[in-house]
Amino acid sequence: MKKLISEFIGTLWLVLGGCGSAVLAAGYPELGIGFVGVSLAFGLTVLTMAYAIGHISGCHLNPAVSIGLWIGGRFDKKELIPYIIAQVLGGIAGAGILYLIVSGKSGFEIGGFAANGYGEHSPDGYSMISALVTEIVMTFMFLIVILGATHSKAPKGFAGLSIGLGLTLIHLISIPVTNTSVNPARSTSQAIFAGDWALGQLWLFWVAPIIGAILAGFIYKYISPEEA
Amino acid sequence: MKKLISEFIGTLWLVLGGCGSAVLAAGYPELGIGFVGVSLAFGLTVLTMAYAIGHISGCHLNPAVSIGLWIGGRFDKKELIPYIIAQVLGGIAGAGILYLIVSGKSGFEIGGFAANGYGEHSPDGYSMISALVTEIVMTFMFLIVILGATHSKAPKGFAGLSIGLGLTLIHLISIPVTNTSVNPARSTSQAIFAGDWALGQLWLFWVAPIIGAILAGFIYKYISPEEA
Amino acid sequence: MKKLISEFIGTLWLVLGGCGSAVLAAGYPELGIGFVGVSLAFGLTVLTMAYAIGHISGCHLNPAVSIGLWIGGRFDKKELIPYIIAQVLGGIAGAGILYLIVSGKSGFEIGGFAANGYGEHSPDGYSMISALVTEIVMTFMFLIVILGATHSKAPKGFAGLSIGLGLTLIHLISIPVTNTSVNPARSTSQAIFAGDWALGQLWLFWVAPIIGAILAGFIYKYISPEEA
Amino acid sequence: MKKLISEFIGTLWLVLGGCGSAVLAAGYPELGIGFVGVSLAFGLTVLTMAYAIGHISGCHLNPAVSIGLWIGGRFDKKELIPYIIAQVLGGIAGAGILYLIVSGKSGFEIGGFAANGYGEHSPDGYSMISALVTEIVMTFMFLIVILGATHSKAPKGFAGLSIGLGLTLIHLISIPVTNTSVNPARSTSQAIFAGDWALGQLWLFWVAPIIGAILAGFIYKYISPEEA
Repeated sequence: MKKLISEFIGTLWLVLGGCGSAVLAAGYPELGIGFVGVSLAFGLTVLTMAYAIGHISGCHLNPAVSIGLWIGGRFDKKELIPYIIAQVLGGIAGAGILYLIVSGKSGFEIGGFAANGYGEHSPDGYSMISALVTEIVMTFMFLIVILGATHSKAPKGFAGLSIGLGLTLIHLISIPVTNTSVNPARSTSQAIFAGDWALGQLWLFWVAPIIGAILAGFIYKYISPEEA
Repeated sequence: MKKLISEFIGTLWLVLGGCGSAVLAAGYPELGIGFVGVSLAFGLTVLTMAYAIGHISGCHLNPAVSIGLWIGGRFDKKELIPYIIAQVLGGIAGAGILYLIVSGKSGFEIGGFAANGYGEHSPDGYSMISALVTEIVMTFMFLIVILGATHSKAPKGFAGLSIGLGLTLIHLISIPVTNTSVNPARSTSQAIFAGDWALGQLWLFWVAPIIGAILAGFIYKYISPEEA
Repeated sequence: MKKLISEFIGTLWLVLGGCGSAVLAAGYPELGIGFVGVSLAFGLTVLTMAYAIGHISGCHLNPAVSIGLWIGGRFDKKELIPYIIAQVLGGIAGAGILYLIVSGKSGFEIGGFAANGYGEHSPDGYSMISALVTEIVMTFMFLIVILGATHSKAPKGFAGLSIGLGLTLIHLISIPVTNTSVNPARSTSQAIFAGDWALGQLWLFWVAPIIGAILAGFIYKYISPEEA
Repeated sequence: MKKLISEFIGTLWLVLGGCGSAVLAAGYPELGIGFVGVSLAFGLTVLTMAYAIGHISGCHLNPAVSIGLWIGGRFDKKELIPYIIAQVLGGIAGAGILYLIVSGKSGFEIGGFAANGYGEHSPDGYSMISALVTEIVMTFMFLIVILGATHSKAPKGFAGLSIGLGLTLIHLISIPVTNTSVNPARSTSQAIFAGDWALGQLWLFWVAPIIGAILAGFIYKYISPEEA
């Protein structure tokens, strides 16, 4: 139960921090944080939680990560479903808090919130195929980073730093394509509030990250050395 | 006494560095650092002090942090009041140095300095309720980050990095809402120089951070594992 | 073979992440990541891979790095050619994935992709001599950073952080001069897709980084202390 | 001699990287790195050198740092003058390489290079008194960060990270006031090439940093705990 509360709080923070920075601060006139700031924010939610709750739940905060770790032989199958439920609920709670905050701004309209999309809902007009490739490859590399940095032969203690900044990197690359998901819980949390097209396109942000994560689980097992 | 001098110097640095970057550099034409730079600056004041004075005073620099650590069972109640006094005085000293510097610019007017505010004094026009929710939740998460990263089972040495970058993250999210406090000493230091509305709204930036910190102290105790 | 697959994947990530951020996100209207974001992205590809595959292949991702490490006495000559081949192929694969993604944007034209250039193809109009000096000196310093941070007397575990952020620094300085190479595999991957002038200028981005790396290998050996 | 070569190369890198990013990349149209990028670049020169040559020379790269470490009881007086000479020469060499690169751009005029100044040569018009206060206080805090992070009771290995990012922080705050020195070698290197007013104002950028460093040396000795 402590693990599930940790995953809940951590995913809440990922959504509130990452999507919150996008909704509240990215486009502020003149001084706004832009995509660099949003990329940093997403990465820092994971970095800070890795050191805060990593020793409790492992700090997955993402159904694709839990699945990739299971395929890679690092996570017990029987914890998979409870983790995913805690992550999705935590994400929705984070989105709810964000909604509560932004609705206190006069003239607020929700628009797309920070939902993920493709085609005409891609921030820069990328096709569904581009979105699929991007989300599969980005999640694949995210899991390679995670599986590698938490390997027993990697330097101790640096995993949270590397994984958090890896998520920053993924956002620096791919926000213009899909608004960057690599995390079905994050996508679901925003689609529920944005509704409409965001719910209709949500399938891609479950399917693609999970495919990428499964591939990474198999390939990292093949290239990784014996555990120390 | 060494502890109190350390808290004084550290909080002086937090205010001079964080609020200083906002007042001096955020809005410089074309090349200014914007909210990303201010967020980095606040976080780096804490990161640098954590490694410089963490082994002397614990580097709280913030009354809400001292209170949250006390509730979380990490800080002795009898040191609480002296720490808070040192922090508030250090913050005011930092604001004084900043005032001395900026007043040497021709045409300088103090305006709101880097004071925190809500309603019509929120940078982007958020209501008092939005401000309350934001400051409570951000301080709550800040204390979860602090209590988690300094737990005996967390990787050694990384706490200063994680806590400092956690404060950066909090600013990336919430500057548009309240100009970001999560720290009553920082808010007080600016309100004293800005006067007027900033003093009138100061209560919120004591009440909300302290509520968030107390909640985090209780909840982290519940989810945290036994100390190593 | 595990080492070569690791170098392949790592260099793929360097090109997809670094050049990808430049092509996809640098110039996005208002919110784009600019040269700061591209610099961070390049550095973070190396940082993340250092912790993920450093314990497998050493994470060179760059023919000039492999050559500099060989001259510096840290890498076995008989692995040199296979490493370079894996790096070049990985870079091309990364460029191919990037091409696949960007070609899904309506109205896409490849232009110069993220190719390196000098003279009229320098982003800010620097001469061939400026480009040669820049690439030699930047690669020289990159290898000093690498050889120093991986020395047995340097603090354990921090090499990936320092080397990754070193590549960020090099980009912060030199994107306007040559679009920053310091890596023949990265330059080759882009020139193949950009064709034309990029192939004609490619020689410089093999010759200069290799000269810089060789010089650093000799000089670091001279100034470095005995191994611990 | 190895120590002096290390200080020479390190200070060369500080000037080439920090001032180079300012001259080459800060003001690039649309995509330029601005003061945030320049601040990062200065900090990363120190961070990367700390891990590369810290175990050789201690990585001072700055006469004020050497003096502050001497006052603080961490550096032998008889090495002070040779270190300062190596730093000043390294800085000039870095400025020379930068001059060589930028002079290969058509239409180049040196202007103020990246020289430090006050009054009408302050980037944002701050008075000589503001400049004095700023440089004294910033160098004072820089030395507190350095003396603290390298104390035997501070976490091992993190000093380079904290000191480098501390220099980033100092630039985020104070570029608009004096273009940020806190380092007489850096100021001298630019003044020699910029000539004119930059040489006339150079005295302040020796006097103020040294005063700040000496004060920090005394005060840190007073507040610091016994060495472990």
